[in-house]
Amino acid sequence: MIERYTKPEMGRLWTTEARFEKMKEVELAVAHVQGQMGIIPKKAAADIKKNAKVKVKRILKIEEKTKHDVIAFVSQLAEEVGDNGRYIHFGLTSSDVLDTALSLQMKESFLVLHKQWKDLDQVFKSLIRKNANALCAGRTHGMQGEPTSFGYKLCGFHAEFRRNVKRLKLAFQDNFICKLSGAVGTYNSQPITMEKKVAKALGLSPETIATQVVPRDRHSNLLYAFASYAAGMERLCIELRHLQRTEVGEVFEGFSKGQKGSSAMPHKKNPITAENVTGLSRMTRAYVQTGLENISLWHERDLSHSSTERVFFADAFVLHHYMNFRIKNLLENLVVDKVRMRKNLDLSQGKVYSSQLLLALVKKSWKREKAYELVQSLSLKLSPKQNLLEACLLEPALLESLSVKELDQIFSGKILSETLKSLVKKYLESLSKERI
Amino acid sequence: MIERYTKPEMGRLWTTEARFEKMKEVELAVAHVQGQMGIIPKKAAADIKKNAKVKVKRILKIEEKTKHDVIAFVSQLAEEVGDNGRYIHFGLTSSDVLDTALSLQMKESFLVLHKQWKDLDQVFKSLIRKNANALCAGRTHGMQGEPTSFGYKLCGFHAEFRRNVKRLKLAFQDNFICKLSGAVGTYNSQPITMEKKVAKALGLSPETIATQVVPRDRHSNLLYAFASYAAGMERLCIELRHLQRTEVGEVFEGFSKGQKGSSAMPHKKNPITAENVTGLSRMTRAYVQTGLENISLWHERDLSHSSTERVFFADAFVLHHYMNFRIKNLLENLVVDKVRMRKNLDLSQGKVYSSQLLLALVKKSWKREKAYELVQSLSLKLSPKQNLLEACLLEPALLESLSVKELDQIFSGKILSETLKSLVKKYLESLSKERI
Amino acid sequence: MIERYTKPEMGRLWTTEARFEKMKEVELAVAHVQGQMGIIPKKAAADIKKNAKVKVKRILKIEEKTKHDVIAFVSQLAEEVGDNGRYIHFGLTSSDVLDTALSLQMKESFLVLHKQWKDLDQVFKSLIRKNANALCAGRTHGMQGEPTSFGYKLCGFHAEFRRNVKRLKLAFQDNFICKLSGAVGTYNSQPITMEKKVAKALGLSPETIATQVVPRDRHSNLLYAFASYAAGMERLCIELRHLQRTEVGEVFEGFSKGQKGSSAMPHKKNPITAENVTGLSRMTRAYVQTGLENISLWHERDLSHSSTERVFFADAFVLHHYMNFRIKNLLENLVVDKVRMRKNLDLSQGKVYSSQLLLALVKKSWKREKAYELVQSLSLKLSPKQNLLEACLLEPALLESLSVKELDQIFSGKILSETLKSLVKKYLESLSKERI
Amino acid sequence: MIERYTKPEMGRLWTTEARFEKMKEVELAVAHVQGQMGIIPKKAAADIKKNAKVKVKRILKIEEKTKHDVIAFVSQLAEEVGDNGRYIHFGLTSSDVLDTALSLQMKESFLVLHKQWKDLDQVFKSLIRKNANALCAGRTHGMQGEPTSFGYKLCGFHAEFRRNVKRLKLAFQDNFICKLSGAVGTYNSQPITMEKKVAKALGLSPETIATQVVPRDRHSNLLYAFASYAAGMERLCIELRHLQRTEVGEVFEGFSKGQKGSSAMPHKKNPITAENVTGLSRMTRAYVQTGLENISLWHERDLSHSSTERVFFADAFVLHHYMNFRIKNLLENLVVDKVRMRKNLDLSQGKVYSSQLLLALVKKSWKREKAYELVQSLSLKLSPKQNLLEACLLEPALLESLSVKELDQIFSGKILSETLKSLVKKYLESLSKERI
Repeated sequence: MIERYTKPEMGRLWTTEARFEKMKEVELAVAHVQGQMGIIPKKAAADIKKNAKVKVKRILKIEEKTKHDVIAFVSQLAEEVGDNGRYIHFGLTSSDVLDTALSLQMKESFLVLHKQWKDLDQVFKSLIRKNANALCAGRTHGMQGEPTSFGYKLCGFHAEFRRNVKRLKLAFQDNFICKLSGAVGTYNSQPITMEKKVAKALGLSPETIATQVVPRDRHSNLLYAFASYAAGMERLCIELRHLQRTEVGEVFEGFSKGQKGSSAMPHKKNPITAENVTGLSRMTRAYVQTGLENISLWHERDLSHSSTERVFFADAFVLHHYMNFRIKNLLENLVVDKVRMRKNLDLSQGKVYSSQLLLALVKKSWKREKAYELVQSLSLKLSPKQNLLEACLLEPALLESLSVKELDQIFSGKILSETLKSLVKKYLESLSKERI
Repeated sequence: MIERYTKPEMGRLWTTEARFEKMKEVELAVAHVQGQMGIIPKKAAADIKKNAKVKVKRILKIEEKTKHDVIAFVSQLAEEVGDNGRYIHFGLTSSDVLDTALSLQMKESFLVLHKQWKDLDQVFKSLIRKNANALCAGRTHGMQGEPTSFGYKLCGFHAEFRRNVKRLKLAFQDNFICKLSGAVGTYNSQPITMEKKVAKALGLSPETIATQVVPRDRHSNLLYAFASYAAGMERLCIELRHLQRTEVGEVFEGFSKGQKGSSAMPHKKNPITAENVTGLSRMTRAYVQTGLENISLWHERDLSHSSTERVFFADAFVLHHYMNFRIKNLLENLVVDKVRMRKNLDLSQGKVYSSQLLLALVKKSWKREKAYELVQSLSLKLSPKQNLLEACLLEPALLESLSVKELDQIFSGKILSETLKSLVKKYLESLSKERI
Repeated sequence: MIERYTKPEMGRLWTTEARFEKMKEVELAVAHVQGQMGIIPKKAAADIKKNAKVKVKRILKIEEKTKHDVIAFVSQLAEEVGDNGRYIHFGLTSSDVLDTALSLQMKESFLVLHKQWKDLDQVFKSLIRKNANALCAGRTHGMQGEPTSFGYKLCGFHAEFRRNVKRLKLAFQDNFICKLSGAVGTYNSQPITMEKKVAKALGLSPETIATQVVPRDRHSNLLYAFASYAAGMERLCIELRHLQRTEVGEVFEGFSKGQKGSSAMPHKKNPITAENVTGLSRMTRAYVQTGLENISLWHERDLSHSSTERVFFADAFVLHHYMNFRIKNLLENLVVDKVRMRKNLDLSQGKVYSSQLLLALVKKSWKREKAYELVQSLSLKLSPKQNLLEACLLEPALLESLSVKELDQIFSGKILSETLKSLVKKYLESLSKERI
Repeated sequence: MIERYTKPEMGRLWTTEARFEKMKEVELAVAHVQGQMGIIPKKAAADIKKNAKVKVKRILKIEEKTKHDVIAFVSQLAEEVGDNGRYIHFGLTSSDVLDTALSLQMKESFLVLHKQWKDLDQVFKSLIRKNANALCAGRTHGMQGEPTSFGYKLCGFHAEFRRNVKRLKLAFQDNFICKLSGAVGTYNSQPITMEKKVAKALGLSPETIATQVVPRDRHSNLLYAFASYAAGMERLCIELRHLQRTEVGEVFEGFSKGQKGSSAMPHKKNPITAENVTGLSRMTRAYVQTGLENISLWHERDLSHSSTERVFFADAFVLHHYMNFRIKNLLENLVVDKVRMRKNLDLSQGKVYSSQLLLALVKKSWKREKAYELVQSLSLKLSPKQNLLEACLLEPALLESLSVKELDQIFSGKILSETLKSLVKKYLESLSKERI
């Protein structure tokens, strides 16, 4: 976990201590169920519940000798409990505890993240509403194409965000797994009912068929969902970075008092949050590769996934949480310059309306090729200060098919603006039925 | 599409010609709906339906001049149709046709693949049934651990296969998208109802909010589902490669008459199918990275995804199809040596039962640490020909707690074998409720 | 090999036929040396040289039965040669021929690529020279920062290109390897001197220590060099795409007669070559992952690399060749609008010179913080039509330290322009000493 | 930096504090040279040298307000220096300091790693020497093929290690870069000679042509070199994991006193170090993708690389260092069971010598196909307890061509063993000329 990107709400769930606490939670639930089922004495279960207490330093001390962290952990707990400590971890294998505890860490993290997504959803919708009427250039290949509105653009990013949240929820669901089937997943030292009861107590689902571990396709899928979500945020951030560039100037990241843009160039207001998130997405994307490679463990398991998971789980969760924090700030403080948007639209000298011109001509029985050639040639030979509308008015062949009034309608954005507002409205209404 | 891995059932869906045919299908459906809606003359729609015919060579010829393949395609179709040809592609942008046609290619491919998955599901289940009683070593870290059965192992691979098929089906569903919202996705030259009607006619869903293109998170998700599925198959293949190695010899790939293993070493029967699939999984995994990078297109779209998609879509589909073909063959012809499995179990000199021994001692009130130390020390000092059971019989402290009969029960695999058979049976029964 | 991106100069080196021809070249060189060394009869070597002829169809026919392509290949050659055909492939293993033939394919490809790099080097230098005086905005975070020149920008891209060519040359050198050490690399059926003599005859170096195959770190390294080169070209293309956008308009891809930009928007001139190359770089990058995963073959080799190499080698070479072809065209036909560059510089209202202003103040004994705050505040409160120079002239505190003349010097780009021209000149001179 | 894998020798070089210290080193060298060149007062340079002192807490405090870490760092240093503090960072841009300081961190890290590589080189060579005579099975496809020796195997891993160290050294060399060319790399506030002098003082090379930053192809190349090195180690570890598996048992990781293998299966000695390194290689590999994506920064730089570098640089260095530490331990304590190696060779019932048998027959004028068929058929029909030599002695056709003595020579490993010893010896001698 890199300190700089670790917010406590998420960071505290992925410390060494938190991991041992979740492991204890599993051991306690197991002991409790084993006590009920008569696998261990009821008194032992009660003692364990009462006295088991994690002492991290002591665990690390024991691990120096055993070189096995779960054995060290169990020994430390047992020390606290006394004689009945020997019933801790009864009939379990390390991975039973490790993987089930990981599920608990994920579940607790999910609650934190779900709240972030819901908050972000609101921020998104509010920004969409505020910009439903902000007519601006649509751009393809970085070139102005047809007009659109900033609000409608945001609907696209929001729809993608919603798809990604859905992917994340499914992926999380797939990871709330309880695995207590023992050494090679064959329940050869514990009955299958014990797993079911503990799963229920912990709010998890029992693994269908495990090896020694929970199969890693589940975890890989979650890493992918993080990466897909991050890529959607990256797309948004690249949009905002483009719109903020000097020559475009349509949006700006809010700039807090005292903040400095550059040590050498004091006038600069840079899209640093959007750039930061772009990088975080790249980083998140890298973990997918490792997640996929971790799937092919040998036989009933090998340990090769372990060293990677010690790196990427905490990192992936912490980076995702931090990214949400940054994006929320970014969207809440975004400065939108609607005047500049309109001004940039005018840069095209009316060419942004060429598609509608083309369409109108074909409607008037022009052959598409002929119409295309005319519009292209008019567009290409436009002088620097001339508007495409003006050029059209000088073209007799064209005026035979289209009246000045019709041309005016084409080259004003009014109708379009109304259409876009209604598209945005319709989109927002459609959302009301779905829960995030 | 690499020739070597291209089976015609899939390959024919991803040729240049097939792509143009699907594009024609879209243009025809659009013209038909536009005719019904009065956007173009009914007669024009009828003419287009009757006469539009793809001529690939002519398209490529026109493209040499226009350097734009969709314009070339539309021009060629128009030539065939004659005067009313100008109503082809009316009010559409290239991506409307390209992306919707891609959805149709995916849909047709899905039908082919779905059949493969269903076949493979049967092959899997049959192999599980045949091996439900094949007791063998479970292995962790490559070392023999507790015993399991080959049938139970296969249940784990099958459960993963089922999870991956589920992911694939969801990902495909997400890609059956019709997008006809025009230049920057704002329906500024076509009504939204046109898109809905065409979508329905083509068996697709309209895009929620598009840019100029269908957002690429959908496609990336499908590439990931392919990679996850492939990684599951890779895990299976690595298992089989391990089990086939000289010193293990538990399973073998069937070896057809006339086939040669090595030009230098004629005695070799190699797991070449399993190795081939391992490689194909690696290749499939690489496309995920590109798919994720393609998401962040600039503004309403840039063209950077296009050159990659021309490479990876055909390849990903063809490789997945080929992989299924190979895996099916592999599983259908797999030779399982149950005798060798038992023999290998004996290699551990009874140590595979050490976990059950440990458990039994703890049940008899031994402290876990003390039991662990005893069992470990007995295991470590076992002479090469001695069995752990024999060593136990020489250990008075142990015999005080466990009778010879109890020890015999621990060191025979009988009870375990029955348990495993019933686990397999239960698993197969649970499947009957779910459809693939 | 995707047809669309396959130019014949490179494509012909990576066909199935070309591969068999290179394999024949290896077999012939081996037979010749074995004849000289008395390992096989001289007459046999002569017969092989005279009569061995690749017949692809026949090979594929035989392979249907043997399921082993090298055995099929050797059998076909032997058929052509007659009785002495049995001395073909004498004492070799398949990988001896396959890997050495791959080296020959790489070597021949290298010659084609080296010529492309040299041509591109010239095109680059010529473009630099033409634009040495093109003063334009330097941009960080997408925002205008200090001024630079387009020629100087290009020097940076060229220097990176040169570093990447150097990496490629080293990586190629590392792959010109002859490996004839037999089944598990132990020379157990052929003397080490045979390998040396054949290596010399083929212009290759013998492998230091092989397994059954040439170790795959060599090949992976080449894939990385391709990806690094491609990433450099991607950086260049992203620069050009930025500079071409409507609101910037500083450079344009040449637009050939008849070419059409968009089926819906006829006025558009899009940076499609630069976008295409951006995608190709993404694709090339993906292969690195597979290359790295291929390194860890099991023991003396497994076959898992093979199915991936059948896909990525031809593709990586063909895409690299095609990329060079596109980049050369792009740079040769690039339209640079120097007037627009200057105009864009003025957009900053003089703020691009704020850094030099800051520096001048500090030189006049201002505390850096104080100077920074002043310049930042002046910059931030600039009215839309005001120039930073004008704002400075209204600031008494500032005028106490800097004269109007000094301010004029700061806000004119003259000195800077001269400095940049000389930097470019110096860079080009430094190149004359190095060979590409 | 994950705590678990952070050894202090490397970890201390990548802390926040270490980074600021290196930044100070750069600022001091700059001030010194600027003093000498008369850019700032000599007295100021002296004051800075004397009083500048990094106080991390204070920097972080200032950064809360400025949201710019370099500005905060410079302000803090200036506070320590007093009035002349304003000459710190004179005419520099943040990246001048950040990137040059990064080079210094890399340089110091290099010294630590270079020592590790040299140590590892010795350990490798000693292990090779000890195992030069350890005849064992060579394996392809996981199947026993021709025999080899464990010493010769290790030569292959060592040769790869050496190639990777060479790649690392080149990649490091490419990153010892001093960049002081200012805001957009145009030396517009500092003379080029200043950069040269500082570079020399710091033991770095000046950047050829920079943007605002050192181009990221250099850093990416280093990440690749780490990944390639790690993949080589992964290959070695996978070999050792294979050789340790229960059914092979040829090598074992040393097992320290008190160490426990499994909480459930006390008898297990697992190859946990080799598995750990396998995972670390996977993790290292992931960073390559991010490194390559970081190359295409926008214009003279954007900030997107920054958030990734804050994660992967420290991690990549720390993981590489830790991997070396683990590998060294692994090789120093490796237990090699030469008796078992021979025993496993016998498992093939002499089939490992089939290639030499084939060769001998062809030498006696058998057609290759006929010889191949005979050897294959003999091998395939061998009964479980029969040796291929015995089968040969029952084959009259074969005995006509080969005498019993000749057959004995083929089926004894003696000659081979001598050959392998001499190959190893030759390899070790060849190394003496090269420096690591």
